[in-house]
Amino acid sequence: MKATVFVTLKPSILDPQGKTITEALHTLGYGSVRDVRQGKYFELDVDAADAEQARALAATVADKLLANPVIESYRVDVEG
Amino acid sequence: MKATVFVTLKPSILDPQGKTITEALHTLGYGSVRDVRQGKYFELDVDAADAEQARALAATVADKLLANPVIESYRVDVEG
Repeated sequence: MKATVFVTLKPSILDPQGKTITEALHTLGYGSVRDVRQGKYFELDVDAADAEQARALAATVADKLLANPVIESYRVDVEG
Repeated sequence: MKATVFVTLKPSILDPQGKTITEALHTLGYGSVRDVRQGKYFELDVDAADAEQARALAATVADKLLANPVIESYRVDVEG
């Protein structure tokens, strides 16, 4: 089963990488991009009996390894 | 308007970062995670008249700066 984990910085945390991308885009002439925030994206291929179990496993794994819960939040999507 | 760009390595490209995460998870006892592939995720706040324009801008920006089209592919989502 395929689970997707999206990890983003919490809104209150400064995102210097996103700021750099925004400035690069403005330099390239894309002034209509007001702001960019960068996150991480993980595609997990998990061995689970049903979608609920896959979601629980992905959330545990996100908590333990993929995200830093102090500064990041995550969202889990399960398909199939 | 908010546009989201997901950048992933093309399936034929080796993902050493994903492999390392998979091995770390196996070491931590999560053997039921068979495979992990890591990608990037960008939230763009764009100034556009409609969703179509926002999508076109996000795709251009992904092509020019966010993704390396030789080894990566991307997907654009637009909301509201």
